[in-house]
Amino acid sequence: MRVADIDTPALLVDLEPMERNLRRAADYAGKHGLRLRPHTKTHKSPRIGRRQLELGAAGLTVAKVGEAEVMLDAAPADLLVAYPVIGRAKLERLMTVARRARVTVALDSMAAAQQLSEAAQAAGVQVGVLAETDVGLGRVGVSPGAELLDLARGIERLASLSFEGIAFYPGHIKDNGAAGREALVALGGLIQSILGDFWRAGIQARIVSGGSTPSLYHSHELPGLNEIRPGTYVYNDWNTVASGACTPDECAATLLVTVVSTARPGQIIVDGGSKTFSSDRLTGCGAESTFGHVVEAPEALFHKMNEEHGYVDVSECGRKYEIGERLRIIPNHICVAVNLHARVYGIRDGEVEEVWEVAGRGKLQ
Amino acid sequence: MRVADIDTPALLVDLEPMERNLRRAADYAGKHGLRLRPHTKTHKSPRIGRRQLELGAAGLTVAKVGEAEVMLDAAPADLLVAYPVIGRAKLERLMTVARRARVTVALDSMAAAQQLSEAAQAAGVQVGVLAETDVGLGRVGVSPGAELLDLARGIERLASLSFEGIAFYPGHIKDNGAAGREALVALGGLIQSILGDFWRAGIQARIVSGGSTPSLYHSHELPGLNEIRPGTYVYNDWNTVASGACTPDECAATLLVTVVSTARPGQIIVDGGSKTFSSDRLTGCGAESTFGHVVEAPEALFHKMNEEHGYVDVSECGRKYEIGERLRIIPNHICVAVNLHARVYGIRDGEVEEVWEVAGRGKLQ
Repeated sequence: MRVADIDTPALLVDLEPMERNLRRAADYAGKHGLRLRPHTKTHKSPRIGRRQLELGAAGLTVAKVGEAEVMLDAAPADLLVAYPVIGRAKLERLMTVARRARVTVALDSMAAAQQLSEAAQAAGVQVGVLAETDVGLGRVGVSPGAELLDLARGIERLASLSFEGIAFYPGHIKDNGAAGREALVALGGLIQSILGDFWRAGIQARIVSGGSTPSLYHSHELPGLNEIRPGTYVYNDWNTVASGACTPDECAATLLVTVVSTARPGQIIVDGGSKTFSSDRLTGCGAESTFGHVVEAPEALFHKMNEEHGYVDVSECGRKYEIGERLRIIPNHICVAVNLHARVYGIRDGEVEEVWEVAGRGKLQ
Repeated sequence: MRVADIDTPALLVDLEPMERNLRRAADYAGKHGLRLRPHTKTHKSPRIGRRQLELGAAGLTVAKVGEAEVMLDAAPADLLVAYPVIGRAKLERLMTVARRARVTVALDSMAAAQQLSEAAQAAGVQVGVLAETDVGLGRVGVSPGAELLDLARGIERLASLSFEGIAFYPGHIKDNGAAGREALVALGGLIQSILGDFWRAGIQARIVSGGSTPSLYHSHELPGLNEIRPGTYVYNDWNTVASGACTPDECAATLLVTVVSTARPGQIIVDGGSKTFSSDRLTGCGAESTFGHVVEAPEALFHKMNEEHGYVDVSECGRKYEIGERLRIIPNHICVAVNLHARVYGIRDGEVEEVWEVAGRGKLQ
């Protein structure tokens, strides 16, 4: 099957840059002695998870129990659920997963730890726990200092749980410029301070787990950090380009769309909108934003979308577009776009080399 | 099964307001002699499509061929694809649909009309066509006047197509206030002008199809309009409330979520973000927006989301929230939220009365 035979809209992945992205992160982690536990929420496909493990990943990360169930097909030795698992229904399912792979959970409350301990005891399994701390994003995680030490001590006391260390998500570091550099230096200091607290308290934090895609290749500059969990790096997206963390040719995933209307001069409508791309704006952009980068027409502005309509201003493109023409667009945020697609077309040299399912699509629970 | 037994996040629909919404629109259309062809992109479920037909809808509307295939299960006599169908793959599938139900397509170019005519001839079926015109949104549709007349004449000349009238989408009318009123009056004048053009040209436009949810109950004020295609009205959402077109108790759909973190004072994190709600902002809002209305805590501000995390500011709520508490949130835009869910829990008096599949979820093509 050729790319020309794929009906639109469709999610394409160029295999060559994807393979380069996977290898580069694996080599980097290996070189710097960092444990790589990639977040699979970006690709949601065991096929890619297996490839990450083959290249040396120590385990895989997921956000939801449903993603953990799906990712068992990649046969990971180790699965990190980087999300507090709350409630009996999910915990029972997680214990079923824990019988097939070693499971670790990142959590930020004794309420979550107690529920997990009870479920693990009832199931007769041992579960690893990372204490989640907030290093600046203001999302989940207790404050560094006394709160974090108390949480770690509390976890250590609970049956069937092994306290393994700390986790954080530096999602507030969004660029590789001066602001990102400053945030990175501050984060390095904070990690040192946290590890000092743990050393003085006599608590061993074997794993110090952080890392996101924008800061990925600066991870070795953070003394004490020994595990990274990037997700987006497998495909990259226009946010990653905007952050300075990758170049356009390192974006492996594109949405293939067709021009369906040219009725308005200087504008084309393509057959993909918020149900194809998601309505995520560029990170850090407010009301004014674009929704993706048109590969074949860098001057084009994908400035508006409805559910199934993408509005692209082509007035600066110096040419006309015809109904039926096909374009490839790099989305702002690939993780939410992938979740809207049932399958991915893996392509090389204009040919579809393989097709894989987004097995974790829509696994909300 | 009780609502308390549903794991989160989950899409709930209160059956009583849904039934009221469906009846009200059907009664309104009946009273004013308007043909009702509801857009099924909101619910994407044949179960609801059947109910719309039982209540008197003349047919159903879809955006994509894949939605048409799914909606055949509702056994509609008539299916309108309100989207230009471009390319052989989709047209062949559409002709298979056209053997089981009468199909009409709204389109805005002779390129689309010619492709459709060729496919219909090859399949030996007759397909209805509406000429799409732009009445202010600036999306698809040729300009009223000479362009529209030319398109209608062109369609009339093509084999296996029946020109049936005109279609437009008044998506630029977003509120029921002064601006909406002004736009409605202008639209009424424009329709008159278009119908005058057609009368003078001797072309019969049997169907004049418009109507969206925000302007739904003003449709009878538009002389000449004889068909309406509202979608959102079945469930409504916070955009509909903000437009003044419904009250909060007419919102039938909510997302049930659980509090998973309370680590940051004055904030709770719930287990739904852009993969549960979509990242759609309130229509007309720029950078500052909220992502839904918390039913149990109207003072709460759902001000930020990541993929699986909803950030809710509860500092003005006058009480604390505990991990494990459950809340219901009315999303900004229900159509994109539904598309993220595999099933819907239909509830009444705290009990799950029925569960139905979102059979059209992710049907992009």
